Amino acid sequence: MAGPGRSSAVTLGQLGEDAVVARLVRGLPTGSDVLVGPGDDCAVLGRPRDARWTLFKTDCVIENIHFRPDEDASRVGWKALARALSDIAAMGGEPSHGLITIAAPREMPAIRLDALDAGLRKAARRFDVAIVGGETARSPGPLFLSVALTGTVEHDRCVLRSGGKPRDAIYVTGRLGGSLQGKHLDFIPRLAEARWLTSHLKVHAMMDLSDGLAADLPRLAAASDCGFTLWENEIPRTRGCTLAQALADGEDYELLFTVAAREASSLESSWRKAFPRLRLTRIGELALQSEIRNPKSFRGFDHFA
Amino acid sequence: MAGPGRSSAVTLGQLGEDAVVARLVRGLPTGSDVLVGPGDDCAVLGRPRDARWTLFKTDCVIENIHFRPDEDASRVGWKALARALSDIAAMGGEPSHGLITIAAPREMPAIRLDALDAGLRKAARRFDVAIVGGETARSPGPLFLSVALTGTVEHDRCVLRSGGKPRDAIYVTGRLGGSLQGKHLDFIPRLAEARWLTSHLKVHAMMDLSDGLAADLPRLAAASDCGFTLWENEIPRTRGCTLAQALADGEDYELLFTVAAREASSLESSWRKAFPRLRLTRIGELALQSEIRNPKSFRGFDHFA
Repeated sequence: MAGPGRSSAVTLGQLGEDAVVARLVRGLPTGSDVLVGPGDDCAVLGRPRDARWTLFKTDCVIENIHFRPDEDASRVGWKALARALSDIAAMGGEPSHGLITIAAPREMPAIRLDALDAGLRKAARRFDVAIVGGETARSPGPLFLSVALTGTVEHDRCVLRSGGKPRDAIYVTGRLGGSLQGKHLDFIPRLAEARWLTSHLKVHAMMDLSDGLAADLPRLAAASDCGFTLWENEIPRTRGCTLAQALADGEDYELLFTVAAREASSLESSWRKAFPRLRLTRIGELALQSEIRNPKSFRGFDHFA
Repeated sequence: MAGPGRSSAVTLGQLGEDAVVARLVRGLPTGSDVLVGPGDDCAVLGRPRDARWTLFKTDCVIENIHFRPDEDASRVGWKALARALSDIAAMGGEPSHGLITIAAPREMPAIRLDALDAGLRKAARRFDVAIVGGETARSPGPLFLSVALTGTVEHDRCVLRSGGKPRDAIYVTGRLGGSLQGKHLDFIPRLAEARWLTSHLKVHAMMDLSDGLAADLPRLAAASDCGFTLWENEIPRTRGCTLAQALADGEDYELLFTVAAREASSLESSWRKAFPRLRLTRIGELALQSEIRNPKSFRGFDHFA
């Protein structure tokens, strides 16, 4: 009999997001100038000794999945670009060039397209992205936006998910949970914060929180070949959110990163001076083996679930 | 009263594709390293004196628009990558790295995803593209694939749409029309042919034919600030196709290019030796003013029409 991954009856929903991605990236051929292929927040391209490496990322937002049909389209445009920028931030990088793909129903009013475009341009101006082209297509269904971004990062400031070490302190920026109250459309990608971090200390591992801490922290730990202890009472929650919401709502777009434990106190005091209005919270530590205290609540957002 | 482009009642279908794209790209900010922004087959990035420039392109295919739901998914995967490769070819470039975005319904069988992926990988292997990552999302509607590609081109071999000159000979590769009979899924992007052309002569202007000669030739001529004379009887038609089909079916993915008229005869004889199985046809000439003999038939494919 065929296993569950092989039967023709198995759907993407049954496989789940991580398994779907794993199928797509297994054994991908990579060239000699591919420093990091699939599996991190961005692909990293270049030669090991280049002073700067190129970052490359795509991301998409879809009506009825990532935004409601009645949503202000300028916020949707902002979100589409900001999501990809959050991935550039997660590598410690700076954005360069963007391409926009819009698939829209032909009955969509032109002023809605103009609003989308205004939101994209607002984000592009604020974060210094040159939008160098766009494709349009007709969608027979939902409105669909895809963003392709390039960026750069100095090779000694590029941070992967895989650099975490046992006993590293785990930090998260901002507050988690409740993103659907509005933050998922208006969030600020943590580009400045990530650049500050890599200029002030050695960040071992970093990623952005898109699917919720409960989905993303295990990914960072697994990439670093570590387990982790999470101090659930320390997790900074958005006002009114339960622990479960802070863990699993997703779309926080905050930075999750680890540093050597000995750097913790100086990091915390200099962070407070640099970013007095953005909370930075130590929420646990990487470990040799996983020690999750409350496994039942530990499930993030799965796009296909 | 508001003009037709300003009224809130105007839809994308009423505006038409070129007007939609024009709205999206007007006044886009570009950085100093943007050599070609929106409006050509790819964006061109780099500094003017760099030996090689970077090409950047995205493209998408959508179920029920670009392929039927019952289509062999491996052919769909091939098409998704080959379309973007055709744009790299149109600049005279070579592909480098690709990122794939797939939005799929959760009830899609996993084996269909595997087939899509097989088609993408087949095209990536054949044309030497390193696929360096992929995003997946759930689609509440049709299956949607977007491809982002980078490439490179020597700066003295980069061909834009805008370099055509009055009295240039206009050429097209292959045969036009009838793509829906199957070619739209199995076509070969003309990368080798374009590289051969730029190594053998000065190509003034080039693009790939995606929306049909009737839509695309006026775009090339306008970008070159020229009119054109089209020799309609010379247009190479796919067997069984009418002139109208050859002009307007679209999805030919052939090269349309111009060279100085004095180069025509040597081009034709050396082409026959290099590509004995692929037709090359001189179909007209650029002119100072437009001289279209049969304007009524002259309408290409409009995605929003």
